[in-house]
Amino acid sequence: MIVAFQGEIGAYSEATVLEHFGADVQTKPCKNFEDVFAATEAGECDYGLIPIENSVAGSIHRNYDLLLENTLSIVGEHYLRVHHSLIALPGVEISDIRKVISHPQALAQCDHYLRSLANIEIEAAYDTAGSVKIVRELGDRTLAAIASARAAQVYDMAILKEGIEDNPANFTRFLVIAKEAVIKEGECKTSIVFSLDNQPGALFKALSVFALRDVDLSKIESRPLVGKPWEYCFYVDLIGSTSEQKVERALNHLAEYALTVRVLGSYPRHRMNW
Amino acid sequence: MIVAFQGEIGAYSEATVLEHFGADVQTKPCKNFEDVFAATEAGECDYGLIPIENSVAGSIHRNYDLLLENTLSIVGEHYLRVHHSLIALPGVEISDIRKVISHPQALAQCDHYLRSLANIEIEAAYDTAGSVKIVRELGDRTLAAIASARAAQVYDMAILKEGIEDNPANFTRFLVIAKEAVIKEGECKTSIVFSLDNQPGALFKALSVFALRDVDLSKIESRPLVGKPWEYCFYVDLIGSTSEQKVERALNHLAEYALTVRVLGSYPRHRMNW
Repeated sequence: MIVAFQGEIGAYSEATVLEHFGADVQTKPCKNFEDVFAATEAGECDYGLIPIENSVAGSIHRNYDLLLENTLSIVGEHYLRVHHSLIALPGVEISDIRKVISHPQALAQCDHYLRSLANIEIEAAYDTAGSVKIVRELGDRTLAAIASARAAQVYDMAILKEGIEDNPANFTRFLVIAKEAVIKEGECKTSIVFSLDNQPGALFKALSVFALRDVDLSKIESRPLVGKPWEYCFYVDLIGSTSEQKVERALNHLAEYALTVRVLGSYPRHRMNW
Repeated sequence: MIVAFQGEIGAYSEATVLEHFGADVQTKPCKNFEDVFAATEAGECDYGLIPIENSVAGSIHRNYDLLLENTLSIVGEHYLRVHHSLIALPGVEISDIRKVISHPQALAQCDHYLRSLANIEIEAAYDTAGSVKIVRELGDRTLAAIASARAAQVYDMAILKEGIEDNPANFTRFLVIAKEAVIKEGECKTSIVFSLDNQPGALFKALSVFALRDVDLSKIESRPLVGKPWEYCFYVDLIGSTSEQKVERALNHLAEYALTVRVLGSYPRHRMNW
């Protein structure tokens, strides 16, 4: 089985592929999110995996746009607890480190820890796993990178310290995408995107189709439609599958009010302990 | 008047301060978002300005957290159209450029343009305005940075090309924060955060308090509460001010259902053409 992800070997997305599908899966790195969609569409992989929201940084609208532009279905979800590690050459100690490199967002998320280290220079890199690769290639024993534990393993590097993120509540939700929708048994979620005219009460009417049928929502987010100042689109995740009659009826009812409705897929719910 | 923002002189946030308050305002750069809040709280500036959501990258939950942890009020909003520029030393031509540096997000947002330039190396920097400063300090005529036009002006550099972002619909919404709430006349927005027990229909009931009074919403976003798997908080912006009776009544009504309700502020609506 081949699964495409965005980033370098050792990226958080790759670590998620292995957590979700198991260690035997073959991972396929892609430069951009677009490339993950294209590889999945072209059959170069069985699945693609994309981040959709982070508990600190918010929803990744770009990937919602790509879901709408393509015809792929969401067939799974996975929550990853983001643990940042300080990674250096084997045998190096924290006191040897003079410079730390990583993606600016990872550096910012470890700001308190980095400030606790004396006389450390901070430098940006294009991505987290790539910064580990740079440390290994330079062979510099005063240099460390911030990345996933998986990146240390991939590049045969040492973890100086794990869990250096300031906010322990740092989770990223990933979606698994595929060419064929798969309606699963058991507890499911269904992701939909719909748009409404911006009239008072429009959203209230739209949500009535779920409330009247006791369909629970696990996410709702509005997004103004650029270029259409009076329209909004809404991202909604509901508990249930399109194979259930009450969900099917709610979606038919929603179509009466909404300008557009698109079902992105039904998939098994990932329960995580947080 | 002094206004604090996060980033280097020449950052998009600083450009927004000048667009919102006019060219005579004194800008105060801060390293972190926390520092913007602290400077405003301590009276070291009259206002702080923070980004809250981007049309491509989503809501910045970190700043919602800081709004909840602090007692500052939102007193204004401003939408900035994000135009990326390719910036180099004066007299340099695009054909001279061999390497482009910037924040990874800015580089990613100009990916199509960068691919159109032949034989260009891409390198990450900690922020956009800082990358312009680096080009100037190195005096390297084969190097260019991606940043705001404001950054070129600040560092006396030349703009080789403006508007190089792939997606023209790239907007960031900023909030102005201050120690004292100011209830304004005219068309206002009010931002609130509330939390609900995760029961089917809970959100529907909560939204009824607005729908029943014809109070229009301009944003809604749910966020799972980490550590409380059965509770959600909701970010809602509504059209109207807490000085209006129907808004006041709706918020009192909401408090009957909600576990918590916090009003972050009422402020004049920024209308932008998109």
